[in-house]
Amino acid sequence: MPYTAKTMEYLKRTSPAQTEFYQAAEEVLLSLAPLLDKDPRYKKHNIIERIVEPERQILFRVTWIDDKGEVQVNKGFRIEFNSCLGPYKGGLRFHPSVNAGIIKFLGFEQIFKNSLTGLPIGGGKGGSDFDPKGKSDGEIMRFCQSFMTELYRHIGPTIDVPAGDIGVGGREIGYLFGQYKRLTGRYEGVLTGKGLNWGGSLVRTEATGYGAVYFAQNMLEARGETLEGKVCTVSGSGNVAIYTIEKLYELGAKPVTVSDSRGMVYDKHGINLETLKEIKEVQKTSLEAYIKEHPNAEYTPVSE
Amino acid sequence: MPYTAKTMEYLKRTSPAQTEFYQAAEEVLLSLAPLLDKDPRYKKHNIIERIVEPERQILFRVTWIDDKGEVQVNKGFRIEFNSCLGPYKGGLRFHPSVNAGIIKFLGFEQIFKNSLTGLPIGGGKGGSDFDPKGKSDGEIMRFCQSFMTELYRHIGPTIDVPAGDIGVGGREIGYLFGQYKRLTGRYEGVLTGKGLNWGGSLVRTEATGYGAVYFAQNMLEARGETLEGKVCTVSGSGNVAIYTIEKLYELGAKPVTVSDSRGMVYDKHGINLETLKEIKEVQKTSLEAYIKEHPNAEYTPVSE
Amino acid sequence: MPYTAKTMEYLKRTSPAQTEFYQAAEEVLLSLAPLLDKDPRYKKHNIIERIVEPERQILFRVTWIDDKGEVQVNKGFRIEFNSCLGPYKGGLRFHPSVNAGIIKFLGFEQIFKNSLTGLPIGGGKGGSDFDPKGKSDGEIMRFCQSFMTELYRHIGPTIDVPAGDIGVGGREIGYLFGQYKRLTGRYEGVLTGKGLNWGGSLVRTEATGYGAVYFAQNMLEARGETLEGKVCTVSGSGNVAIYTIEKLYELGAKPVTVSDSRGMVYDKHGINLETLKEIKEVQKTSLEAYIKEHPNAEYTPVSE
Amino acid sequence: MPYTAKTMEYLKRTSPAQTEFYQAAEEVLLSLAPLLDKDPRYKKHNIIERIVEPERQILFRVTWIDDKGEVQVNKGFRIEFNSCLGPYKGGLRFHPSVNAGIIKFLGFEQIFKNSLTGLPIGGGKGGSDFDPKGKSDGEIMRFCQSFMTELYRHIGPTIDVPAGDIGVGGREIGYLFGQYKRLTGRYEGVLTGKGLNWGGSLVRTEATGYGAVYFAQNMLEARGETLEGKVCTVSGSGNVAIYTIEKLYELGAKPVTVSDSRGMVYDKHGINLETLKEIKEVQKTSLEAYIKEHPNAEYTPVSE
Amino acid sequence: MPYTAKTMEYLKRTSPAQTEFYQAAEEVLLSLAPLLDKDPRYKKHNIIERIVEPERQILFRVTWIDDKGEVQVNKGFRIEFNSCLGPYKGGLRFHPSVNAGIIKFLGFEQIFKNSLTGLPIGGGKGGSDFDPKGKSDGEIMRFCQSFMTELYRHIGPTIDVPAGDIGVGGREIGYLFGQYKRLTGRYEGVLTGKGLNWGGSLVRTEATGYGAVYFAQNMLEARGETLEGKVCTVSGSGNVAIYTIEKLYELGAKPVTVSDSRGMVYDKHGINLETLKEIKEVQKTSLEAYIKEHPNAEYTPVSE
Amino acid sequence: MPYTAKTMEYLKRTSPAQTEFYQAAEEVLLSLAPLLDKDPRYKKHNIIERIVEPERQILFRVTWIDDKGEVQVNKGFRIEFNSCLGPYKGGLRFHPSVNAGIIKFLGFEQIFKNSLTGLPIGGGKGGSDFDPKGKSDGEIMRFCQSFMTELYRHIGPTIDVPAGDIGVGGREIGYLFGQYKRLTGRYEGVLTGKGLNWGGSLVRTEATGYGAVYFAQNMLEARGETLEGKVCTVSGSGNVAIYTIEKLYELGAKPVTVSDSRGMVYDKHGINLETLKEIKEVQKTSLEAYIKEHPNAEYTPVSE
Repeated sequence: MPYTAKTMEYLKRTSPAQTEFYQAAEEVLLSLAPLLDKDPRYKKHNIIERIVEPERQILFRVTWIDDKGEVQVNKGFRIEFNSCLGPYKGGLRFHPSVNAGIIKFLGFEQIFKNSLTGLPIGGGKGGSDFDPKGKSDGEIMRFCQSFMTELYRHIGPTIDVPAGDIGVGGREIGYLFGQYKRLTGRYEGVLTGKGLNWGGSLVRTEATGYGAVYFAQNMLEARGETLEGKVCTVSGSGNVAIYTIEKLYELGAKPVTVSDSRGMVYDKHGINLETLKEIKEVQKTSLEAYIKEHPNAEYTPVSE
Repeated sequence: MPYTAKTMEYLKRTSPAQTEFYQAAEEVLLSLAPLLDKDPRYKKHNIIERIVEPERQILFRVTWIDDKGEVQVNKGFRIEFNSCLGPYKGGLRFHPSVNAGIIKFLGFEQIFKNSLTGLPIGGGKGGSDFDPKGKSDGEIMRFCQSFMTELYRHIGPTIDVPAGDIGVGGREIGYLFGQYKRLTGRYEGVLTGKGLNWGGSLVRTEATGYGAVYFAQNMLEARGETLEGKVCTVSGSGNVAIYTIEKLYELGAKPVTVSDSRGMVYDKHGINLETLKEIKEVQKTSLEAYIKEHPNAEYTPVSE
Repeated sequence: MPYTAKTMEYLKRTSPAQTEFYQAAEEVLLSLAPLLDKDPRYKKHNIIERIVEPERQILFRVTWIDDKGEVQVNKGFRIEFNSCLGPYKGGLRFHPSVNAGIIKFLGFEQIFKNSLTGLPIGGGKGGSDFDPKGKSDGEIMRFCQSFMTELYRHIGPTIDVPAGDIGVGGREIGYLFGQYKRLTGRYEGVLTGKGLNWGGSLVRTEATGYGAVYFAQNMLEARGETLEGKVCTVSGSGNVAIYTIEKLYELGAKPVTVSDSRGMVYDKHGINLETLKEIKEVQKTSLEAYIKEHPNAEYTPVSE
Repeated sequence: MPYTAKTMEYLKRTSPAQTEFYQAAEEVLLSLAPLLDKDPRYKKHNIIERIVEPERQILFRVTWIDDKGEVQVNKGFRIEFNSCLGPYKGGLRFHPSVNAGIIKFLGFEQIFKNSLTGLPIGGGKGGSDFDPKGKSDGEIMRFCQSFMTELYRHIGPTIDVPAGDIGVGGREIGYLFGQYKRLTGRYEGVLTGKGLNWGGSLVRTEATGYGAVYFAQNMLEARGETLEGKVCTVSGSGNVAIYTIEKLYELGAKPVTVSDSRGMVYDKHGINLETLKEIKEVQKTSLEAYIKEHPNAEYTPVSE
Repeated sequence: MPYTAKTMEYLKRTSPAQTEFYQAAEEVLLSLAPLLDKDPRYKKHNIIERIVEPERQILFRVTWIDDKGEVQVNKGFRIEFNSCLGPYKGGLRFHPSVNAGIIKFLGFEQIFKNSLTGLPIGGGKGGSDFDPKGKSDGEIMRFCQSFMTELYRHIGPTIDVPAGDIGVGGREIGYLFGQYKRLTGRYEGVLTGKGLNWGGSLVRTEATGYGAVYFAQNMLEARGETLEGKVCTVSGSGNVAIYTIEKLYELGAKPVTVSDSRGMVYDKHGINLETLKEIKEVQKTSLEAYIKEHPNAEYTPVSE
Repeated sequence: MPYTAKTMEYLKRTSPAQTEFYQAAEEVLLSLAPLLDKDPRYKKHNIIERIVEPERQILFRVTWIDDKGEVQVNKGFRIEFNSCLGPYKGGLRFHPSVNAGIIKFLGFEQIFKNSLTGLPIGGGKGGSDFDPKGKSDGEIMRFCQSFMTELYRHIGPTIDVPAGDIGVGGREIGYLFGQYKRLTGRYEGVLTGKGLNWGGSLVRTEATGYGAVYFAQNMLEARGETLEGKVCTVSGSGNVAIYTIEKLYELGAKPVTVSDSRGMVYDKHGINLETLKEIKEVQKTSLEAYIKEHPNAEYTPVSE
């Protein structure tokens, strides 16, 4: 399809070295091809060219001081991709893999994810190549404060409302919000993911996992089936996976797998939710520990 | 030198596909090496890592409507590189070759260029891949207005003060400033390069050319020489070249060459300044025309 | 009544050539006379003198470029009449008949209309003598963008919240809101009348017509009657008339007339709602077409 | 307890002459001692030192002109004590006894009172040593306008939301809000206690009295008892007392006392609510009048 | 000339009842006719239509309380006519004759007057129909404060810089500036005409009179003449006239007349400057007093 | 004098525990008594009551983290005393002795000191009870950043322009300005005392000492004398003393003493300026060292 191909060629030339973003753009464009072909207005008004280019990308230097008193430098990003439907919305990711291409790819997908909610929210994404692993609370705090000292001028309740993502949980949102409030004096809805005892929403932790199961439940319903008695495989073992499993049990299904970056657990009797929470929410350790509690389960390390 | 090498390796990994910027950074770092080696404070405070990373980069979508009524999309850039010494300052370039790497390279050099003035001004650069060639006045105006509709929130007399550069002359500065004033209501010093009859500075057009000659004059003086009677070769035939020639004549020198993108003129009697201005400032045509007026001069086209 | 007369004389002297406004002011003052006579506090605190003078009137030049590339000049108005009860609220009218007197008259009435809602909203009105008739989409867009480029600094969710009116429908509100968002970065409740798929309210189109019928229903109820079986005459054939008719049918009444600028239809069997919507919402043509579908109805052109 | 003692010693040294504040701080610290002893994190993070020091105190000069045309000078205060849980919130008190120590004491307690609501609101307090007694409406208005001319830059719906307190009722809130609106143009939730017909909340007058009774009701419930048939003594005869009595009657109790600054009434048949409202809300006179209507009640003047 | 006529017809239709403005516009257009006829760009870009329409007109209600405690209502105006050359600049006039037409007429002329200075200043004008005559200092102060409470949001050092005019002298500028500073906290160049001891400029009082004489001096010089020995007639006896006379004497001329609203003085020996200053700057009385000091001079009352 | 006495009594009652301030106020009032007695306008307009009360006092909590990672709490102050003549101006003092009374005393005197310059600057003062002695660079930096994170919203080039004072030198101004710039993005004149290589003024270090000598020179001139040949005693050995001595030598005088907190030097040949600078600007040690270089000078330790 030449129209999409032309757009992709343009993207690659003008935004070099952003492989993940090309792939996301291409997939969306291909899946939209039937619509784009049918309605000439998309082409006439250059909708495609406009939607693949972020409205605004802010890249900034984040300097902070580590526990040894040395100045560290990281890159900060906020890609405000599209605000047709509402204020930009999308998480902040703190992970060494973060770069402009990754954030653009995630921000691009966020436009479409958010539009599906039917709510007036646009799409964006941000983060940093800062690696929270092995950092002390003090270092995390100082990084977050420095990050927000730049970000605060670009966000706002009706402008851009970041959330958490990988590496940005309740603790980080707390440091970020605290700095935002200190700088602006405003205690307002500029970040989501706040702690329950200072303005956060109930059931936010559970939301994605529960939602995934509700989605499956509706899909099955469309075929006249239910989750009752179904054997389910779940990947991951973070928030989403844990509350997917919790809801699956509530609806009568039997989830039998979980995984993390080191390996996979298969428990034919169904994953034990209590053990899983203990391992991942309290001890924050590897799934290998699951086998010790449930010797009948099987553990397959990644390297096999 | 491993310290510089490490920095370069980091730059290439985290800012992919910015060849021009790597080269500029490497040159500066190498030339600074003796200083960096001598004074351990640069390394201790991570000055190098901090100075090669822009404080803030704003990339934005510029949509505008061409004379056929079609929506066009371009990329806009403003790299606010370093404000240690003052508000960001540096030109805006409108040219199809503009990309993030080019603007970072120019913005990086601008830090050092501006610091040499001894004035409190920091370094930055911006522009767009918009090509002003072949565009109508109306298209240029609409592009400039759209560009400023984003830029206006990032600049200010004590924040960031852009100037012109390739593709951004008096006309474009006029459209940009007009839009800034219309949006903010403020008639203030937020752009340099304004027209003489609405707030611009005298002798701005002549400044770079005159300055180049003053520089040469001072160099010669240091050796006990003067420009008086010197035969000089000048490259180019734009503002800088024309006023270099004007000042050379004033100081008693004889400039004998000029050039443009198509060829070079050698006039052993000295370039005729009046003819040159007529060709380049009024008729805006090729230097080939010079020969018609001055048959004794020699014209060498580029292809030879 | 001398108090009112004195106020009217003052108005005519200090706000010359605003006939419509004098009439509105006079009617309101006369109808309030019994109250004003009874309670001396109105006179003591000069309430009347204060309420007939707008708190703020902003008149502005709107320049825009038509499809031939020529600069056009129109007048823009925003009369912020009274904010005692809440942020200014009232429509924008784009029509050649618009002038300061008309807008003041409408803004003055808006104070009282809005106060009847019991909600905390003040009164205002605005618009332009721009004539949307015969203009292309591009011209409407450019006019709206230019209009908002001035207006945006005067409005806000808690300051002044314009709506549509004659010549300002969903399309115009879209262009106006888009420009507001682009200039301020804020996606917020600063205009009412937005499209359903980007933040608008349900049933807004139907609201005025339905409301008129609910009002009649309540009036009848006070006399122990209902709309059931009543024969009703409706004037107009726009949004208000169409949804007045729809609701009348729902409540068992029989609407038998509609009209437009060219003529009037009388259908003793009751106006056919489907035909009416087809003519006015889809084909956007004259009511004369109604007779072709329903030969028994009578059509009376205006000239008779 | 040495930790508390050390804090108290520090407070007295660095905030001299604030007796009321020392007392409040000491009481809170002592009552928190068991918690502070148990959890070492409070000490480790210096929570106590941080919570006894207001985040921001603004003291300002209030000049206004009395009815004789003379300039008067008063002190204005706004202590923004703690915003951990939300925007600062707390009343404004206009009374000659107001000074920095009193306001700090009230603001400190407000942190804890507000936190008990479970809502995201922080603690603050403000006011002036201005004495509203014997002042004309015009003087009150001019004082309030001058007070707000300073205060408006420090408050906002998500920043600091003052309310009324002693000397600041519906009239004063009206003057304050009017000036805020006039200065900012914003009709927004920046003050609580507004009049019902311009944005105030229903049942606000009744809230504290009703709430006190609901609290008692819940306490009794915890012991398996109800208010039904209980004889109750109520002190005061302002808003709180009147609506405490109203609610007590609704729940079947019999309130038998009320008091004001001059004396106390004991009516063994139960205080007559209608008479009480007539005396205190309409005639605004002394409780002595109660005896005239109800000769069987006993009146005890303060001097006995 | 049909182009001018068309413009005038349009002005009269769309800005009714502004006789003074029509006259000013017509005179300017007629005097520009040769230029407009010669250069087609004025017509092509609709420059005339754009220059006769103010960029922004702000009309506002000014309520204030007189010495009897009664609320008074006046109209306030600020016409921001044209900012092509710089921030709006032009005086504020407080006089009962002030209306929209007068202010537009003065603001229109101000564009051209200011452009002649060669400085980057645009044109504007403002004022009120408030009559300062017979008002107490307190009333003037309260009016000025109320006037500025609206105006402050529209002006600024790079936006709009009002000055004094009829009815607005050092005292009024003081009240206005004081209120501006109080509301914004900014002590900045937002008004001209300040008192010498709080930021005003030297020689401002003398400037217009001196300038008038310099103008005459230059005119004469163009004809090879000087003011030396010339007999001059001067009208008026305010600031402009007094310092015209002072400068005339300095340059060797002999001014022989002055006038005020009641009559005219002719002193063939030359007006005595000391007497004139005593009468007009100190005693502030009628010129009739001049005759008492200089019996040889002739006084002609207006009624003759 | 009862008027002053009444004011003093009021001050002591309403601003308790501010001994230094009472003393300053009393001295000023007493020295002004003759003027206050002569001109009744001071009393009529309550000028004294208004000038002894600061326009605005901001007290704030400064939390920062020391090198051991522990949270420390200090008090921050900014007393904006009087802006009649211009933006507030006055130093920041970081010293354990700082409290509200000290800062008010200094701010009050600053009004009069600044007015003597004849420049449009008002009076203010600020600081903290933070003790910079024994703190590391990192701790100073973190304290300054935290201090400015509150202060930045209260200052500005035309609002309030702090300077250094005890404990706040070039280093601290650097940290404070850096944080201001980082938070606001504005590189502007909001602090004085900046380093020479980033926007500071020449001769600022020398200014106070030179000025003291110029003052003496003028005093002598008034008596027909000069400094030539005078023997002078100078107290102190900081910036002021060193440049007093430098200027005294330039004008032909002979300064023979200097002192520091530990002792006093008397050198009958005149203090050796080079030695003094070496001891105090380079080695930063005690004046005792002076004797080693100049055995003929006498050193008297404080304890004698």
